[in-house]
Amino acid sequence: MKFSATKSTLVYALQIVQKAVSPRNPVPTLSGILFKTGADQLTVSATDLDLTIECTVPVTVHEPGNIVLPARYITELARRLPDVPILIETLTAGSAATISYGQSQSNIHGFPADQYPELPELPEAPALLISQGKLKEVIRQVIFAASTDETRPVFTGALLEIRDGALTLVATDTHRLAWCRLPVQADEIISIIVPGKTFTEMLKITGNSEEEDVTVYVSQSHVFFVTSVMQISSRVIAGKFPPYQQVIPREFSTRIKAVTRELLEATERASLLITEGMPVVHFNLEKDACVLSVHTEAGWIREEMDLQVEGEPLQISFNSRYLCDALRAINSNEVLINMTGPLSAAVIRCPENTQYLSLLLPAQPKPARSE
Amino acid sequence: MKFSATKSTLVYALQIVQKAVSPRNPVPTLSGILFKTGADQLTVSATDLDLTIECTVPVTVHEPGNIVLPARYITELARRLPDVPILIETLTAGSAATISYGQSQSNIHGFPADQYPELPELPEAPALLISQGKLKEVIRQVIFAASTDETRPVFTGALLEIRDGALTLVATDTHRLAWCRLPVQADEIISIIVPGKTFTEMLKITGNSEEEDVTVYVSQSHVFFVTSVMQISSRVIAGKFPPYQQVIPREFSTRIKAVTRELLEATERASLLITEGMPVVHFNLEKDACVLSVHTEAGWIREEMDLQVEGEPLQISFNSRYLCDALRAINSNEVLINMTGPLSAAVIRCPENTQYLSLLLPAQPKPARSE
Repeated sequence: MKFSATKSTLVYALQIVQKAVSPRNPVPTLSGILFKTGADQLTVSATDLDLTIECTVPVTVHEPGNIVLPARYITELARRLPDVPILIETLTAGSAATISYGQSQSNIHGFPADQYPELPELPEAPALLISQGKLKEVIRQVIFAASTDETRPVFTGALLEIRDGALTLVATDTHRLAWCRLPVQADEIISIIVPGKTFTEMLKITGNSEEEDVTVYVSQSHVFFVTSVMQISSRVIAGKFPPYQQVIPREFSTRIKAVTRELLEATERASLLITEGMPVVHFNLEKDACVLSVHTEAGWIREEMDLQVEGEPLQISFNSRYLCDALRAINSNEVLINMTGPLSAAVIRCPENTQYLSLLLPAQPKPARSE
Repeated sequence: MKFSATKSTLVYALQIVQKAVSPRNPVPTLSGILFKTGADQLTVSATDLDLTIECTVPVTVHEPGNIVLPARYITELARRLPDVPILIETLTAGSAATISYGQSQSNIHGFPADQYPELPELPEAPALLISQGKLKEVIRQVIFAASTDETRPVFTGALLEIRDGALTLVATDTHRLAWCRLPVQADEIISIIVPGKTFTEMLKITGNSEEEDVTVYVSQSHVFFVTSVMQISSRVIAGKFPPYQQVIPREFSTRIKAVTRELLEATERASLLITEGMPVVHFNLEKDACVLSVHTEAGWIREEMDLQVEGEPLQISFNSRYLCDALRAINSNEVLINMTGPLSAAVIRCPENTQYLSLLLPAQPKPARSE
């Protein structure tokens, strides 16, 4: 293998795939990045066996070939190279590469490419074409509700369904749930559970333009998100996603309408005093009066908010971290919260958007205590 | 105590003093910030008994008084307050304060001010007046050479001397030394050892303009740096700073002149491959040819630099972390390194500045190994 590239091209490609490297994996090649040159292009790939990221960039190929290089050295070195043409070539053995820049050189030990695990193969027919920006926004609005508890794998993912001209994404950790629906053009019916980690990493990748389309492919065991420069593939989670429609309350007895940022900031302030146990904030709702309060050993806080309260008066408590997550996922200036008593799930919505909601179970109110 | 302030005033003052709070100190009041109101001003103070920071800002005082409030709550709360007038008042007991903003309130438990340790008292006569920007630059150029090993306290500080119309700052951890001299107008002769931590914190405080003067006061046991809004005081370190003049080589047999940034970047790149033991980089110097190299299990790197080499050819090795620290302290485009053999300290200088230098002992070259 022998190719020349600019520093920026190399750094761009390595930074994108780096997120899938698993540095502490007992399989040593997995701490590396696979380099593969084709006709005037370089494809770099990294995988942790669940998530695989590949990035293809234009380079000048002098001799096609491949090698696996340790991610930590090659990414750090690339980032610190001077801004001159970079020549990378492998020795005959194919287990070390020389990086030449100006009058200087570095030689890094790697692994022959045939020791790298086989990467999942892209199915022939795409399932869906969607704009990167829209897909990311749907993911951002839903993924916070996924669980991180690996003992129940189904809850660590998000259900991605395509049917009836719409894409639906749902995540729940059983305490909360987020649901988003987006009209799409697709013929296939698809229902898979995508690992939360895959979506979280996708949000971090600032690829090319958000306007660009991403093509989604689905195989028996994998889902693929493909753009002109990169391909992200992920194992799907086996199992059955719980039937969630039935838990979404259709009616409510109390509703508040608040400025999203104000409610979020008040909840964040109220949480500051909580340093132990579950961070619970209390709401006292009466006609057009909302008081948010917390009492702890450290002191108390009482936030009185001017916001619209309709329906029955209600005293209700929430895990403040969960409430903040839900409010941060709201992408509208105002937020609606529909409630049906102190023990039933609240429904959090953007006004004028029936295609998004999240659900939040109230926290058990703590026994009253004297100040 | 009762006063009104804007959010930005409060946040500004708290952020400055916060650096002296010692959250894990067994004395509970030390995890707090002392509030004290005088005539139309608020002074907040924090101390870890070594370092004390006080900041005075204009507020509207309704009732003078004082209280100690837990730093973590009051600073976080202040930062998250809405941008409305803030009213802070203590209850009659003086051990809790109510913070009112808009229609909302928080009450934080604190401590009566008389439980706070006594703060060092400012001497009457100042020792020196110096511009903040110049003082910070001298500190930045020297403080990296101080030790962090608390078993030998003298080396954890920097010697600050004022005599013969100059301020001299010197720090050494015995492997390296940095020295800077600045002409000043001062009559007093002063020689104290200031803790490195004090200087490091001073560099982090972005107070008001760098142009503003800072007045230095020295008492038996403390040094004070005073500006119009803040006062930083620090215990001085008892002991005798080692005689350093005699270790500074006056002659040299090999000299290199390099572009500071190029030499720094090459050294940083060369260090990347070193993951175990002391990070040693090797220099091979011949007439106008400098080769920097590192060999490790992971591979090798060979940086060939176009730079001016005068005098005897030399092979010399340095701890790359120390060398990078020294090069980062150089504030000129070019750097001079004067050497007198592979085992003697190198002298690192800015060209055209005889008032700054740092010294770096070479690393013992490792036994040669085959590639």
